[in-house]
Amino acid sequence: MSTNRLNVGIIGAGRIGKVHAENLASRVPEARTLAIADVNLEAAQRLAARCGIPSVTESSAEILANPAIEAVLICSSTDTHADLIVDAARAGKHIFCEKPIAHSVTRIEEALAAVKQAGVKLQIGFNRRFDANFARVRHAVASGEIGTPRLMHIVSRDPAPPPLSYVRVSGGIFMDMTIHDFDMARFLIGDEVEEVYTAAGVMVDPEIGATGDLDTAVITLRFTSGVIATIDNCRQAAYGYDQRVEILGSGGSIATANCHPNQATVSTATEVRRDLPLNFFMDRYKESFATEIRAFVEAVGEDRPTPATGADGLIAVVIGIAARRSYDERRPVRL
Amino acid sequence: MSTNRLNVGIIGAGRIGKVHAENLASRVPEARTLAIADVNLEAAQRLAARCGIPSVTESSAEILANPAIEAVLICSSTDTHADLIVDAARAGKHIFCEKPIAHSVTRIEEALAAVKQAGVKLQIGFNRRFDANFARVRHAVASGEIGTPRLMHIVSRDPAPPPLSYVRVSGGIFMDMTIHDFDMARFLIGDEVEEVYTAAGVMVDPEIGATGDLDTAVITLRFTSGVIATIDNCRQAAYGYDQRVEILGSGGSIATANCHPNQATVSTATEVRRDLPLNFFMDRYKESFATEIRAFVEAVGEDRPTPATGADGLIAVVIGIAARRSYDERRPVRL
Amino acid sequence: MSTNRLNVGIIGAGRIGKVHAENLASRVPEARTLAIADVNLEAAQRLAARCGIPSVTESSAEILANPAIEAVLICSSTDTHADLIVDAARAGKHIFCEKPIAHSVTRIEEALAAVKQAGVKLQIGFNRRFDANFARVRHAVASGEIGTPRLMHIVSRDPAPPPLSYVRVSGGIFMDMTIHDFDMARFLIGDEVEEVYTAAGVMVDPEIGATGDLDTAVITLRFTSGVIATIDNCRQAAYGYDQRVEILGSGGSIATANCHPNQATVSTATEVRRDLPLNFFMDRYKESFATEIRAFVEAVGEDRPTPATGADGLIAVVIGIAARRSYDERRPVRL
Amino acid sequence: MSTNRLNVGIIGAGRIGKVHAENLASRVPEARTLAIADVNLEAAQRLAARCGIPSVTESSAEILANPAIEAVLICSSTDTHADLIVDAARAGKHIFCEKPIAHSVTRIEEALAAVKQAGVKLQIGFNRRFDANFARVRHAVASGEIGTPRLMHIVSRDPAPPPLSYVRVSGGIFMDMTIHDFDMARFLIGDEVEEVYTAAGVMVDPEIGATGDLDTAVITLRFTSGVIATIDNCRQAAYGYDQRVEILGSGGSIATANCHPNQATVSTATEVRRDLPLNFFMDRYKESFATEIRAFVEAVGEDRPTPATGADGLIAVVIGIAARRSYDERRPVRL
Repeated sequence: MSTNRLNVGIIGAGRIGKVHAENLASRVPEARTLAIADVNLEAAQRLAARCGIPSVTESSAEILANPAIEAVLICSSTDTHADLIVDAARAGKHIFCEKPIAHSVTRIEEALAAVKQAGVKLQIGFNRRFDANFARVRHAVASGEIGTPRLMHIVSRDPAPPPLSYVRVSGGIFMDMTIHDFDMARFLIGDEVEEVYTAAGVMVDPEIGATGDLDTAVITLRFTSGVIATIDNCRQAAYGYDQRVEILGSGGSIATANCHPNQATVSTATEVRRDLPLNFFMDRYKESFATEIRAFVEAVGEDRPTPATGADGLIAVVIGIAARRSYDERRPVRL
Repeated sequence: MSTNRLNVGIIGAGRIGKVHAENLASRVPEARTLAIADVNLEAAQRLAARCGIPSVTESSAEILANPAIEAVLICSSTDTHADLIVDAARAGKHIFCEKPIAHSVTRIEEALAAVKQAGVKLQIGFNRRFDANFARVRHAVASGEIGTPRLMHIVSRDPAPPPLSYVRVSGGIFMDMTIHDFDMARFLIGDEVEEVYTAAGVMVDPEIGATGDLDTAVITLRFTSGVIATIDNCRQAAYGYDQRVEILGSGGSIATANCHPNQATVSTATEVRRDLPLNFFMDRYKESFATEIRAFVEAVGEDRPTPATGADGLIAVVIGIAARRSYDERRPVRL
Repeated sequence: MSTNRLNVGIIGAGRIGKVHAENLASRVPEARTLAIADVNLEAAQRLAARCGIPSVTESSAEILANPAIEAVLICSSTDTHADLIVDAARAGKHIFCEKPIAHSVTRIEEALAAVKQAGVKLQIGFNRRFDANFARVRHAVASGEIGTPRLMHIVSRDPAPPPLSYVRVSGGIFMDMTIHDFDMARFLIGDEVEEVYTAAGVMVDPEIGATGDLDTAVITLRFTSGVIATIDNCRQAAYGYDQRVEILGSGGSIATANCHPNQATVSTATEVRRDLPLNFFMDRYKESFATEIRAFVEAVGEDRPTPATGADGLIAVVIGIAARRSYDERRPVRL
Repeated sequence: MSTNRLNVGIIGAGRIGKVHAENLASRVPEARTLAIADVNLEAAQRLAARCGIPSVTESSAEILANPAIEAVLICSSTDTHADLIVDAARAGKHIFCEKPIAHSVTRIEEALAAVKQAGVKLQIGFNRRFDANFARVRHAVASGEIGTPRLMHIVSRDPAPPPLSYVRVSGGIFMDMTIHDFDMARFLIGDEVEEVYTAAGVMVDPEIGATGDLDTAVITLRFTSGVIATIDNCRQAAYGYDQRVEILGSGGSIATANCHPNQATVSTATEVRRDLPLNFFMDRYKESFATEIRAFVEAVGEDRPTPATGADGLIAVVIGIAARRSYDERRPVRL
């Protein structure tokens, strides 16, 4: 619509790349996607046709070399994130990158150094920060509505475990699943974690255990302010996707419930019931994806800090590594 | 994207025209808006720019004369609906028209006759049929989940009355506000109303009463099957937009709750509270507008009956007229 | 415990007599039951043994003749109420009488005249006024918490119809079931009804219809203040006893939910559910029975007006008669 | 009523002694309280008058020496429990004793040995087992309704901390407050705890910290079956008494909500709200006290095991000691 729309390139036309491309096309008039890259060229072409993206390529390098492109969205597999951040930063592009940046702290630090040196913006895809429920909880904490926080309980359960092939390359439950909750914990309390204790096990599928991973965990976090938080994770909840949080403060508490596809209650001769919650993240967090990408476009456009920084991406991984160490060594681990 | 997209023209670039234009642009890839008309040319131009609509005009006739346009959306003021339906039908266009068609049964019948003669499709904008809550209730009734319906209670309250200038031309509360509930009642029960009784008054604003209109009403409907329904209307609810329904059947009941912007509950030293419901129809029924327009495009594309027909539009008006007569004559009125 | 305990006699050792006897024994230390009468002597004896009542008789006259007895509870069948009130009043006893006083206005007026002449206190068993939910609603109205009332919706549904033998002598649904709701309507709004309109039918059991009675009804009440109320009655709700009310006022609304045996929610692979509400009035209104009888004892002890007077008993019957007339004559009936 | 009523003596006429005396008098016809003892003779006399207890004494020994008394309720201060259990057992009385038995494992073991030797029954006052919510949760686990348990989260927060004078002799938060939750955890899962980890702090009142105690804690329990449970404790919740539990199993989950004095919801121009939960244990657990004492009387009468045994009392204390050690040594502690 105007010459100051942000010109964007997308790397990766998979599930999450599709979400961002569609949101940019339909809900973020301040941006325009100029090109999309995927080694699966056909997938990229389909998505480009659907979203009116003029240019398609197999090569992410081509995206980074395009001088018209001001910002890139890195939606490829996790193992490519760090290198692409470095390359994109050197190419002077602002960067939105899906989580996690990498499983290794060293690689993340290299990527963040490149970003810093280039002076570009980096936002990590912690989309849940933009969810209406969690944003409301953060508001309650930040505004003092519930006083000084004391205890927090995060429930984060998937409807079903991912395929074993994915589990093997996922970096483990803490890096793949809990990482969102580690970020959420920091975001909601507005403070840093100083100690982690993990109680966990394999309760869903022994095959997951056979890969060396866990499928059920309770992680206790102690913040520098003294707040104690627990994260309750399971790779399988029979009733679907369970995403809740509750915080007790000195002045009261705030708790969120799950989101359901409708607000209808049926009463029969045997029970009072309602339909199951929204089943998984593409439904549950749909709005948050649109909000996060709009926030990125705005942060670039208005030259403000991004609302989920590279440091946020790094710290969540550091906590994830400590959570696993705590489990392995059966003791609380200080960060 | 393909040559068989439905080519649409929009008449009216006001609030509801904007909703449809945006939904067509971003969420209905099976349609393409070729032109938009509004006597306020500037409004039409802004909307066209925003939604990528190639042609803008002040004249609805120009839309109807465009041979490339297969279907029109009539989003202009109510007094223009009937004539535009006749003209559009004669021009061989399929028609989506906002409710009500007209305040007069004669004019509606003329419009429907033209539609019938032309053999085009007509869908009336009873968007609430496409809302997730009400669709779920309809499913419960149609599937037998709650047995044979006996009693229904519809609550439909606005957050605040419209301006008096609007009240004066609105056709009265039954034609302007309750008309949605009359349609909802027929839709949910799947049966026709045979008797109407109205108890009503002016409780919100005497100025509304001074126009000859009412602002608060309870309408009792008796269906041919014997089902008894009540509609509870008020032009003002302090807590916002209240849109609920409850049906008792022989096998159980179904009831819907309002939709809130989040699922958070705050507990303080004085109360357990949550934020107010979504305040008005643009938020509350947002999804339903997209679903209804997609349903229209599909009905045309697949040559199927539209899910809210001209007859539906007519009958809701007939009930509305009877509701007013019942109030005026202080007696139940048979249709 | 002290000499100023109120000495009570109970007439009727059936279901409701048992409730009052037990509550007096265990929860109202300010009263002492001296005697109980029932034509079924064995039932009276069992109850006396259970509750420590020293004297048992087949004859209500014996109770009334006992000079030590200061107050009587009339818990016998409805057709005996009016005569017993007259006799008790003449004997100078304060009177608690179950509802309804009688099905005939004339008989009620005779009874009330006797009460007036004797200067004794009379309380009618409108126990629901003492229920925590309905008391909370009344408080919201009386305190102005929701502003000036506009609309009210009372839901009152039984889990299953009574035996036909009972239906035949019940006085009809309005006299037997809705009478509680008529009283509730007046109690909650704090105003008098001036017009009644009934839409009703036989939807549960044709045998009920064959007795001349109805089993499903919606009664619209207009109060002198202009408030409009609907009462939604059904003799059968598959999910159990349904007892709710909702009032819309100028400043907001108040709505009650049903009471459940526990606050547990179960989420499974098919639904999110909870156990059915408390099934019938002996469970649902358990506390209210204790509170009403304590209120009676206090009103007598402190020489204050009873909280549900003979006039209240009369008016509920008058409305019930009007409700039936409205149904028979298919028109609203003014009182 | 009959000669086989259980003859009971009560030791202690304080808050909890009063609850049991009243419940026995009004709600447990199968028992009869013959005597009550309290060093505060006046308190015992008042309670005896109120509940019809014929004999009052300052001396618990007198109760134990009374050959007509078959069972005693030990409702005196914690430091007297163990000795009284020993004495009562030697006197051949069945025993109901409030929790905890003692703060020392040795003393508890001595008491349990005396009970065993005497062959009398002992029930510990874990009243929450008899609460409708927690009983429903136990039923869900025991019946397989939610499959095999995996994770449990218990929330147990008081409205306000006890006086410091009480804190000093309470045995600490784990022995005084969490002990109920330790028992609840074992009861609900039906398994034994093998490891305990405590994260805790002083967040409510530094004066509590000055006594060496804690006021806020999260305790992670690992059961032998692998189930992981967290207990979330705080001595102060602004909104009142918070008593909830949630269990995730392989087939679903069950979660309880708090109990409120009514089921009314008020919607105003600023919020949708309800009244605070029942404020403290005397209201919240009222019914459970009656149920537990009835269960004790039945267990004695029918010569069945009591539903909360001396071993249950011991194990809860053992876990409490481990919880404190975990906090002191900042490591998980195996039992």
